Amino acid sequence: MADHASTSGRLIKAPENFISPEGARTVFAQAKSGRRDFIRAAFAAAAAGTATTAVRAQSNPVPSEGGDPNILTNPAHTAGLGQPVVTDGYGKPSKYEANVQRRQSPGLTQTAQASVSFAPMQSLFGIVTPSGLHFERHHQGWWDVDPSKHRLMVNGSDDKLVKTPKVFTMDELMRLPSVSRFHFIECGANTGMEWGNVAVPTCQYSHGMISCSEFTGVPLKMVLDMCGVDYKRGRYVLAEGADGSSMTRTIPMEMVENGEVLLAYGQNGEMLRPENGYPLRLVVPGVQGVSWVKYLRRIEVGDQPYAAKDEAIHYIDLMPSGLHRQYTSIQECKSVVTTPSGGQVLLDKGFYNISGLAWSGRGKVTRVDVSVDGGANWRTARLQTPVLSKCLTRFNLNWVWDGKPALIQSRAMDETGYVQPTYRQARAVRGTRSIYHNNSIQTWLVQDSGEVKNVQLS
Amino acid sequence: MADHASTSGRLIKAPENFISPEGARTVFAQAKSGRRDFIRAAFAAAAAGTATTAVRAQSNPVPSEGGDPNILTNPAHTAGLGQPVVTDGYGKPSKYEANVQRRQSPGLTQTAQASVSFAPMQSLFGIVTPSGLHFERHHQGWWDVDPSKHRLMVNGSDDKLVKTPKVFTMDELMRLPSVSRFHFIECGANTGMEWGNVAVPTCQYSHGMISCSEFTGVPLKMVLDMCGVDYKRGRYVLAEGADGSSMTRTIPMEMVENGEVLLAYGQNGEMLRPENGYPLRLVVPGVQGVSWVKYLRRIEVGDQPYAAKDEAIHYIDLMPSGLHRQYTSIQECKSVVTTPSGGQVLLDKGFYNISGLAWSGRGKVTRVDVSVDGGANWRTARLQTPVLSKCLTRFNLNWVWDGKPALIQSRAMDETGYVQPTYRQARAVRGTRSIYHNNSIQTWLVQDSGEVKNVQLS
Repeated sequence: MADHASTSGRLIKAPENFISPEGARTVFAQAKSGRRDFIRAAFAAAAAGTATTAVRAQSNPVPSEGGDPNILTNPAHTAGLGQPVVTDGYGKPSKYEANVQRRQSPGLTQTAQASVSFAPMQSLFGIVTPSGLHFERHHQGWWDVDPSKHRLMVNGSDDKLVKTPKVFTMDELMRLPSVSRFHFIECGANTGMEWGNVAVPTCQYSHGMISCSEFTGVPLKMVLDMCGVDYKRGRYVLAEGADGSSMTRTIPMEMVENGEVLLAYGQNGEMLRPENGYPLRLVVPGVQGVSWVKYLRRIEVGDQPYAAKDEAIHYIDLMPSGLHRQYTSIQECKSVVTTPSGGQVLLDKGFYNISGLAWSGRGKVTRVDVSVDGGANWRTARLQTPVLSKCLTRFNLNWVWDGKPALIQSRAMDETGYVQPTYRQARAVRGTRSIYHNNSIQTWLVQDSGEVKNVQLS
Repeated sequence: MADHASTSGRLIKAPENFISPEGARTVFAQAKSGRRDFIRAAFAAAAAGTATTAVRAQSNPVPSEGGDPNILTNPAHTAGLGQPVVTDGYGKPSKYEANVQRRQSPGLTQTAQASVSFAPMQSLFGIVTPSGLHFERHHQGWWDVDPSKHRLMVNGSDDKLVKTPKVFTMDELMRLPSVSRFHFIECGANTGMEWGNVAVPTCQYSHGMISCSEFTGVPLKMVLDMCGVDYKRGRYVLAEGADGSSMTRTIPMEMVENGEVLLAYGQNGEMLRPENGYPLRLVVPGVQGVSWVKYLRRIEVGDQPYAAKDEAIHYIDLMPSGLHRQYTSIQECKSVVTTPSGGQVLLDKGFYNISGLAWSGRGKVTRVDVSVDGGANWRTARLQTPVLSKCLTRFNLNWVWDGKPALIQSRAMDETGYVQPTYRQARAVRGTRSIYHNNSIQTWLVQDSGEVKNVQLS
């Protein structure tokens, strides 16, 4: 049998070496022992140059292995008694997956309480983000809030906007009729470093402030109805969190009235995680993450936007004119190829499954095209079903790498007809001084060495 | 503000006290401090008798709270600095959720290596089962298999059935075109104790051998094509696992040919968990879990069923005639109300959201009816979208409890027109000596005390 990737001399350039020498060493060591990131990223060494013969390395018939089925796995597995059930009533990933984790970029923020951890996009499958790998964004640290003491208050900015203000316990909210929906949440600053010419090396750092979960909760509209809201005059709600940042964000009432905004307590089948707002957060489908207020303790109904700190002076877009755009909160249609992506290495020419994610804050993704020549030619990718509104959509495309430099891009379209822009198109409107709301087409350069780099086509 | 559930004198009868005094004490202590199971199960005490006033307990206006927003949460949260990002690169549930876990029934099996842990059905939301709570069923314990050493062999039972037998590494499999699909997996023995008159007290123990995940992998058909299978003669495959039980199961080729059977490595966005077959398991949608062979190391193509131990003498159905049914592996349409369910307590009459899960091994669930009077009258529940084939479907129904005894049931239908049977109907055909394949309608008795019990209507 031919050498396979895990014993090859070419090693993955891991995301970690962007920031952490320790991390890089870990990867190096794990790569040599065949860890999964390496397996996924580096691919097999011996595949040939066409799709039909891509598995040539696998074609050795059984006799060359000696015909002994014990070569297939460690004989210890079949000879011995394994671990018992419920050694831990809550299970953990394999020890071989220890390197698949959220990562912080220490240089990005001054403290770890007002910071970010990025999801390992290059290691994820499908559309569900495991809650243990969901990206984090804290403004003043996270708390494990006691649900028996948590309250949600609903009131109006004046006496007439809400007829009967109320305070809800968690058990009162959780006995109401619930809904469950799959949605992505993306930080408005995701891919923000790319506005300038900072091409961060890996997909984890360039696009890792997005995650996708099945959320469960109560439509905010139901609770507002119970409180007797004057919807004619009350066209905005203010959502307020209970953590130290006292996060407040304005949500237009039309987003609430369609039933999409949820008072959510459930995420991927269980309660929200503490880092993600346990026991209650707002879910505002299609809108940037900052509006999905965590540790939600108050909803106020008002007759005008609140111009809160985090919408008047943060999460705004600095335009070339020097003026700011405010309240640009919907995350426009966007996509990214996650494999192959920056920091990975293709070990030889041959067949690869190009895989990535697409999403739109305005509805369903309708099509994703992929280019391997920097946008000169495009092929339409397969969309993984179900394709859901304001949810991640996984796409895949077969590709045979000829060993020459390639520029890999993806371009998503949504049901409004919107097409994800190139960097050039985005910068023509937005300039280069923004932080937020960058949904440009990402380019990964596959070098002839097989190493994949983040590049920006001017 | 009225007393809420967490300070009420009525405590949930937790699943744990069925088997574990320690567990029961934990629940008792946690219930008093307002843990979530309790919140969900026990509901608020002060709700009134109709749906429209069901949240009367919540109707105290804000002034009665003193108007101080700090009453809404622990002031420490808003005054202090919380926890930093990435304290653990892989996150965990809240400490207040520690009691939401898989549980073993010690009396059920003689060793913990050939045993079961049940998923906490009564605590789950939506359709995704968190991988940490996915039920376990091991025949000889679980292993954390090194993926760099794991192999999958594909061969034929004779030289002509497979033209080119192959041995695949994990990296070779993972570079192939992949698909991701949401499917349930149910142990054939789920709800098995109910065939007789053993009414186990909670939904965790009666129905907790089912879970649902987004699986990612390669269609087995693609790999068989690569090996050159003679599909005319090769009408069966044998799947073999690498653990000590050497599990082998026959899969009819027609299930493989439609592309549904997967060689899966991904589960809910990450790699399979060790307890669930890391790094490779077979996914056989709609079929009982035993066929989803874990630690999959070999696929053999044959021209007849293999009559392996676990299909000839286990996982068979003992009929009233004394004969066994073999190969009855498709999980028929079934449903269960998870809230309220056995072991929970309704603290007062008033509004409740009846919630549950439905599924069918033959396709999509088309309708779920719910009865609160033991089947005399039925109302159609709301089905949570997306409704996917061979996947869990969440249903919900509003209910106002009048404080009198109620018999809660759910009855699912699938796209074949099949209707979930009553126990009486199932026993008329199957008798009472089976272990496997019980998809009868479950009945929960709500007593006038509010306590919910598992009962069997004869």
